[in-house]
Amino acid sequence: MSATKTLEKIISWVTVRNQTVREGLAEALATFLLMLLGMGSVAQVVLGRKNFGEYLSINLGFGFGVMLGVHAAGGISGAHMNASITFANCLIGRLPWYKLPAYVIGQFLGSFLASSTIFLLYYDALMDYTGGNLTVSGPIATAGIFATYPAPYMSLSGGFVNELVATSVLLIGVLAINDTWNAAALQGTGALITGLLVMAIGMSMGMNTGYAINPSRDLPPRIFTAIAGWGPEVFRAGNYWWWVPVVAPTLGSLVGIFIYNILIDFHNRSRPGLDAASKSEECRKQDVEAGAMAEIRL
Amino acid sequence: MSATKTLEKIISWVTVRNQTVREGLAEALATFLLMLLGMGSVAQVVLGRKNFGEYLSINLGFGFGVMLGVHAAGGISGAHMNASITFANCLIGRLPWYKLPAYVIGQFLGSFLASSTIFLLYYDALMDYTGGNLTVSGPIATAGIFATYPAPYMSLSGGFVNELVATSVLLIGVLAINDTWNAAALQGTGALITGLLVMAIGMSMGMNTGYAINPSRDLPPRIFTAIAGWGPEVFRAGNYWWWVPVVAPTLGSLVGIFIYNILIDFHNRSRPGLDAASKSEECRKQDVEAGAMAEIRL
Amino acid sequence: MSATKTLEKIISWVTVRNQTVREGLAEALATFLLMLLGMGSVAQVVLGRKNFGEYLSINLGFGFGVMLGVHAAGGISGAHMNASITFANCLIGRLPWYKLPAYVIGQFLGSFLASSTIFLLYYDALMDYTGGNLTVSGPIATAGIFATYPAPYMSLSGGFVNELVATSVLLIGVLAINDTWNAAALQGTGALITGLLVMAIGMSMGMNTGYAINPSRDLPPRIFTAIAGWGPEVFRAGNYWWWVPVVAPTLGSLVGIFIYNILIDFHNRSRPGLDAASKSEECRKQDVEAGAMAEIRL
Amino acid sequence: MSATKTLEKIISWVTVRNQTVREGLAEALATFLLMLLGMGSVAQVVLGRKNFGEYLSINLGFGFGVMLGVHAAGGISGAHMNASITFANCLIGRLPWYKLPAYVIGQFLGSFLASSTIFLLYYDALMDYTGGNLTVSGPIATAGIFATYPAPYMSLSGGFVNELVATSVLLIGVLAINDTWNAAALQGTGALITGLLVMAIGMSMGMNTGYAINPSRDLPPRIFTAIAGWGPEVFRAGNYWWWVPVVAPTLGSLVGIFIYNILIDFHNRSRPGLDAASKSEECRKQDVEAGAMAEIRL
Repeated sequence: MSATKTLEKIISWVTVRNQTVREGLAEALATFLLMLLGMGSVAQVVLGRKNFGEYLSINLGFGFGVMLGVHAAGGISGAHMNASITFANCLIGRLPWYKLPAYVIGQFLGSFLASSTIFLLYYDALMDYTGGNLTVSGPIATAGIFATYPAPYMSLSGGFVNELVATSVLLIGVLAINDTWNAAALQGTGALITGLLVMAIGMSMGMNTGYAINPSRDLPPRIFTAIAGWGPEVFRAGNYWWWVPVVAPTLGSLVGIFIYNILIDFHNRSRPGLDAASKSEECRKQDVEAGAMAEIRL
Repeated sequence: MSATKTLEKIISWVTVRNQTVREGLAEALATFLLMLLGMGSVAQVVLGRKNFGEYLSINLGFGFGVMLGVHAAGGISGAHMNASITFANCLIGRLPWYKLPAYVIGQFLGSFLASSTIFLLYYDALMDYTGGNLTVSGPIATAGIFATYPAPYMSLSGGFVNELVATSVLLIGVLAINDTWNAAALQGTGALITGLLVMAIGMSMGMNTGYAINPSRDLPPRIFTAIAGWGPEVFRAGNYWWWVPVVAPTLGSLVGIFIYNILIDFHNRSRPGLDAASKSEECRKQDVEAGAMAEIRL
Repeated sequence: MSATKTLEKIISWVTVRNQTVREGLAEALATFLLMLLGMGSVAQVVLGRKNFGEYLSINLGFGFGVMLGVHAAGGISGAHMNASITFANCLIGRLPWYKLPAYVIGQFLGSFLASSTIFLLYYDALMDYTGGNLTVSGPIATAGIFATYPAPYMSLSGGFVNELVATSVLLIGVLAINDTWNAAALQGTGALITGLLVMAIGMSMGMNTGYAINPSRDLPPRIFTAIAGWGPEVFRAGNYWWWVPVVAPTLGSLVGIFIYNILIDFHNRSRPGLDAASKSEECRKQDVEAGAMAEIRL
Repeated sequence: MSATKTLEKIISWVTVRNQTVREGLAEALATFLLMLLGMGSVAQVVLGRKNFGEYLSINLGFGFGVMLGVHAAGGISGAHMNASITFANCLIGRLPWYKLPAYVIGQFLGSFLASSTIFLLYYDALMDYTGGNLTVSGPIATAGIFATYPAPYMSLSGGFVNELVATSVLLIGVLAINDTWNAAALQGTGALITGLLVMAIGMSMGMNTGYAINPSRDLPPRIFTAIAGWGPEVFRAGNYWWWVPVVAPTLGSLVGIFIYNILIDFHNRSRPGLDAASKSEECRKQDVEAGAMAEIRL
């Protein structure tokens, strides 16, 4: 009994009552999990010399990382795990601007911590593979385990377009998967479907640029590698590629939202009586009452 | 407030109130997504020299492309994404004939646009891989990224039969997955199951002909490549193969519907009292009231 | 109107009113689909020289084949697709013995027809690969596309045990996936989970014997190959292996049922008040009223 | 009639009425299935010389093994299949300590029996591959089919950290997947999602140590191999590695529970009125009444 009471006191003492801080913590955990599973799968493919996975494993790693992240934070913060998606939510008025810093700091913290953890877990393997020579390019390059780099044949503008298009597909997909006025994934299965979406994007638009499609996935690991031994080359590589995975996904998110709205959602919302084919009238009515479009969630 | 009102006005202004046009737009988006993910995965396998995916990735790319397309348009147009399925729906009276042009135009537009987008995204990689020499056959052939071509050993009639059989399996599967009188996939999970069906078809009947099983998947990209640099050879190749993925799937759709009806559905419908093993009596009753068989949807 | 009436007359005329015949037709269709997707994936791996899939593709092909078969016949006949499962259902009193012939004939017919279809679809590829020399063993052996053969190092008794154990795992899995008193798969998702179960069995117990685990999967294709050009060697190969995939799975089914009952189900059924952790009390009560254990279904 | 009565008598006679024994039996079956599918897939990859699967197959084998185990015992014992998870449940008061022996004995028994079964099934293949020389290291090492061994480059402390981190991710994931106050997987689909989680852990943190993340997965097969012909080297190998997969996962489980609680669950529980985004209020209320956090289940 008294042990239980002591425990309750401790729990009560550590409990965060500020909703925004709680959402930031949830974003941190979700992004940490996404990045740990994602970068871990890249590390296995690279350091394992394709004996412990191949390109498909990387797609699966990030895909199931997203799935796990959605389960870990979906009920608290919406599990954005992506600064571009957080920004877009603020811009279209679905998230108050004052929450943006907590979300982005949480995501960046989680992503940076995951980078350190991967470095720690694979330290022995890294040393074995590189002989201690941490490089960004060349035959034993390992910086690509953490951040993304464009393929040698890519132009900077081509890479920008690739990231922009891939992120707009991500947003269209996320909106569709959660659109109960259309043909949403069944409640409680959306995490898996979103993971498969990210996996498919990596399989069809990943070769050129490494499909960052997310500043929170790319920038913190890059900063980590700059500090941890790869040096400033991580920012210079690919013709100063580093800013593209920050800017292009942010634009791409808005493009994706625009396309889904202009082709699907606006026409759906304007209908006075909902008569679409989908049978979940209940959900639709709730949504109507709740006021149009919901926050975009991964 | 006034910003919101302005936004509402703009939305109201761009809103399409014609149901048929809306369905055409939904078909365009869904087919675009299907083709972008599908052709993108072929591009990665071919141009990445099997370092960024292998044949399985192509099956996954088209499979999850279908899944995404169903989520994107399933509640608006039924997400056919396939002119043969649209045609079959009209023929059996589940879609009015006057809607056929909007559906097919939407699908072809989406498919053509996806081809241009893939060409744009992979332009640098294409140039690097081919040295600018865009060919339909030979060691660095790249036309197969867009449209389908039969294997060198295939006869034209053999290829025709392959496409016909594969499409009939597609239709049998789609009917079964959505047949609430039988053992349908759970509402809200059908998109995934349909994607896995398309994936399985590609794994078991894809080698001979590239499993177009869909005019909207094959013809617009072929036209695109004819214009974009591969030339008229795309129509001459494979003993003038191009018409087979248009005609065979259309026949195959009807064969599939016939087989499913003659073996399963007719006998189910005739029963006066529904006493089947499935427990979703509610769904069945609704279907009975709604009048027999529903429109065939992907 | 009159066209509709004519159609209704035709439908009424072709409608089978005999429930047993209908179940046989459903078994035929489901087994046809399972075998077409399964054998097709083997054909692609063998004839495509591992450029169009690898061993994993075969596991996926049979797995998603089972999934599709369950959707196609699950609401009519229970989608056994396996003579051993049908036999076990009769033996434990869940299916009347008089229905056994219709089920098995349907399964064998579907399996034989699928073999012919695969032969037809891959005829050009077969000729290209073998030069017309259809063999059961050797470097260009192709009989394994249709029926199963043990690995060269296997003893007959070892193979028998392998098939018996693998089939008992199949049955334990099927019983668990459908056991609403335990932790069943969600209604409408069981087809997918059962497919994944078959896939996993092939990945862990497939190398030694080819995991027939089903007479209806193995015997009809073997008879087909004997007729179609491979000759009587298909029955002599592997020290007269052919009878093992008929007898061992039948015994294995009973072993699996016994194990699941003795470890899980008997103790569940005896409880006067149902108080298990699972929350679907409703389902359980229905099951209790319906009288103990349900028919075993794929 | 009298046959039925005799059967009922027999069933009644063998029925175990002790709840703890029943849970132990369920743990035995679930762990047996997990290990049979898991180790079987390793056996195919190793003994099949990568012609019958590759590293991904091992991830899939253990993943779908977990899925099957959850279906087989989830409604009886919670399907821990992992002594560290059982221990953690006792420590946090969700399982009475007196039940721990039955759980762990059941798990170890199932795991040991699965080892014997794999040895039996793959005996011919083992002899063919090794020529009878069962070794723990070297070019034809086969001990890794059963228990886990660290990669040659790994330090003992590095391996310890890897197992600890990987197990904490497992626990965070299991808690999130089942947390109805957050964004849980849909009831009846959790088995699949948990399987995918284990698969992803193996793809991102499996190369260094073989991801035991579970004493019940590692120790009994190691004991089996010591007896069956590999000798005491299985305990000496990897600088006496054997104790790490016992101790590190047990610590890692507690770390995972701590992280999930401190970042997500404590703040969720303290809220007087539940107002989270998730719509399953019903479930939440039940959980509140049932008293805070549920037992941790795979």
